[in-house]
Amino acid sequence: MKIETPNPLQWNFSERAKGMQASFIREILKVTQQPEITSFAGGLPSPATFPVEIMKAAYDKVLSTNGKVALQYGPTDGYMPLRQWIADSLSENGAKILPEQVLMVSGSQQALDLIGKVLIDEGSKVLVETPSYLGALQAFSVYRPEFHSVATDEHGLVPSSLDAIAEGARLLYALPNFQNPTGRSLSVARRQELVETCARLNLPLIEDDPYGSLSYTGQPSPKMIAMNPEGVIYMGSFSKVLTPGIRLGYVVAPLPMVRRLELAKQAADLHTAQLTQMVVHEVVKDGFLDQHIPTIRKLYGDQCQAMLTAMDEHFPKEATWTKPDGGMFIWVDLPKHINAMELLDEAIKHKIAFVPGAPFYANEPATNTLRLSFVTVPPERIRAGIEVLGKLIKARM
Amino acid sequence: MKIETPNPLQWNFSERAKGMQASFIREILKVTQQPEITSFAGGLPSPATFPVEIMKAAYDKVLSTNGKVALQYGPTDGYMPLRQWIADSLSENGAKILPEQVLMVSGSQQALDLIGKVLIDEGSKVLVETPSYLGALQAFSVYRPEFHSVATDEHGLVPSSLDAIAEGARLLYALPNFQNPTGRSLSVARRQELVETCARLNLPLIEDDPYGSLSYTGQPSPKMIAMNPEGVIYMGSFSKVLTPGIRLGYVVAPLPMVRRLELAKQAADLHTAQLTQMVVHEVVKDGFLDQHIPTIRKLYGDQCQAMLTAMDEHFPKEATWTKPDGGMFIWVDLPKHINAMELLDEAIKHKIAFVPGAPFYANEPATNTLRLSFVTVPPERIRAGIEVLGKLIKARM
Repeated sequence: MKIETPNPLQWNFSERAKGMQASFIREILKVTQQPEITSFAGGLPSPATFPVEIMKAAYDKVLSTNGKVALQYGPTDGYMPLRQWIADSLSENGAKILPEQVLMVSGSQQALDLIGKVLIDEGSKVLVETPSYLGALQAFSVYRPEFHSVATDEHGLVPSSLDAIAEGARLLYALPNFQNPTGRSLSVARRQELVETCARLNLPLIEDDPYGSLSYTGQPSPKMIAMNPEGVIYMGSFSKVLTPGIRLGYVVAPLPMVRRLELAKQAADLHTAQLTQMVVHEVVKDGFLDQHIPTIRKLYGDQCQAMLTAMDEHFPKEATWTKPDGGMFIWVDLPKHINAMELLDEAIKHKIAFVPGAPFYANEPATNTLRLSFVTVPPERIRAGIEVLGKLIKARM
Repeated sequence: MKIETPNPLQWNFSERAKGMQASFIREILKVTQQPEITSFAGGLPSPATFPVEIMKAAYDKVLSTNGKVALQYGPTDGYMPLRQWIADSLSENGAKILPEQVLMVSGSQQALDLIGKVLIDEGSKVLVETPSYLGALQAFSVYRPEFHSVATDEHGLVPSSLDAIAEGARLLYALPNFQNPTGRSLSVARRQELVETCARLNLPLIEDDPYGSLSYTGQPSPKMIAMNPEGVIYMGSFSKVLTPGIRLGYVVAPLPMVRRLELAKQAADLHTAQLTQMVVHEVVKDGFLDQHIPTIRKLYGDQCQAMLTAMDEHFPKEATWTKPDGGMFIWVDLPKHINAMELLDEAIKHKIAFVPGAPFYANEPATNTLRLSFVTVPPERIRAGIEVLGKLIKARM
């Protein structure tokens, strides 16, 4: 039955496909997942926090009571009771978010892809923080924009710098809480200024918020979507507060935009699994996250503190780093002459891994930066690993 | 905290977003899901076939034995044991498909989106059957190709017609088994001719095969990917043989292509849920589908026969229709002057629904065609519904 054919096919890929590159982080992860490596490279949440028994009970309940519906095709916009729960949870400080503004997606990475699809033409100007989340740069890059980096200082994005560069921009992508990669958060005053500035400049503001609940003090910051529901596109996720492997996130946007995202979602994968949405609703509807999230905060907060303490002891005084109040990452600035990529090569020989900062820059990279994650490493390994890393940095001073 | 803003945002959508339209079928489904309507419109599999208890046991087992892995982020290409199972099941007639050629996706609609993303530039020539699957037209349209319709006759796609139109085409999209919407299948000889022709013309051949297992006789047709693994991109799905609501499909392609699809998938949604893939592997690994699929074939085959018998009795002799050997659809050609869209308006008043054929055409639509599905309607309602529909058609003769 095999057909004798001439030479194998010569592939003629699209222009956008020719430019696609593997995520540098996912490539590093392949190297660093051996158990003997102390990896500060991952962005994965700690599996110690996954509520396996709760999830199992919810799958059992949904399949027992409503299995035929859960296993059938569902609506593109998502499972209405979960959309309602999300809308209610975002309706803070007097703002009213409607469930119709909520689109369920297959992890918030998909929201990035859909936003890029409906807002970016080839050559469109797209504004991002300096540095910014690598997965967003990767998702938007598919649509071939021109990235412009917005100025940031030690308090994060500087809203007043937008006027000079916003002309014609299609969107501003921001991560206001415990940003990946820096761990920085925007102050309330900066949030207000940012929302005002974007509204004035007719600039859609993307508020990507996977880590907002992971404030170590338990104090949430106000959400920008609640400050201006007509001008902000909010992205949320169950990956960091429940489990990532189920791939469930959501995007909340003004109705003209969410309707457009829904059309893009329909063409992209019809809808996100009904069963997953029904199970997550079953888990969250009676307040489980209110008890569960504090346990994640405690774990990450303690490990963050262990890392910061070890860095104070072992890192040279010429290095500086962020002191996050939440989230999963610390960002390190080394003296300019130290190349973090070369440092990584050496660190791996000493069984330590981290992520060099350069891939997080849309434009000119700062090659002397790196990102450390503490969430999957126990405190004693954090201390030992930071001691080794501190020695390797000092040797390059 | 609410910010006083000027007028709401003026949205500036991408060119591709401006052209997006809702799926006509999904719009019809909203109208026709009331229980009093006899709907021949759906493309949904029958929930009577969903193995709810088997799925529940598999979720329980995977979460009990391997919950932390199942709920964590996973690799973009997918869960290796399931990829191996798929590769083995496609390695027929001496062909050897490698698991590395298999990319797991969130339903095969996602494969269509990813294929469009990596093969189609704006204005690229894309070849499709006449008529073709609406979801594929919708997915590819996002990338703004020029569709060219390939000639078909009563035996399906005519391979010899390709030479005249294939110059510069990026792909040919074909559904060789029990095609949606026509129910037609390609003969073995035509498959061979098609594979040879595409190889000679350096034309990637997409073999979309959601219904291949649903042959009422139980005799599968040979797969084109096994005839030329270096020239065919195969798409499969668990939606029609297990359950659609979990959103699990796969695409199998030559290595340069599957690698490119994987990069696109990584940017689009990182990966498909690990838990889902592990559960499906748990369900299929010991041969469950070998017992289960025959029960689906029997149900659909009996209902197809009930519809064909009722059509013989009640439809006018001037109408013609396909007699499928499998799958979920019958395709009807009415006399040229009868407009199926107008017929639908009247049918809905009589509590009957179907899908007019026009949206399935990439170019000139045949407005006198329609698609009937029999899979979710019991035989007695099929007979009563076809009798009413037959009268409505005869009244227009």
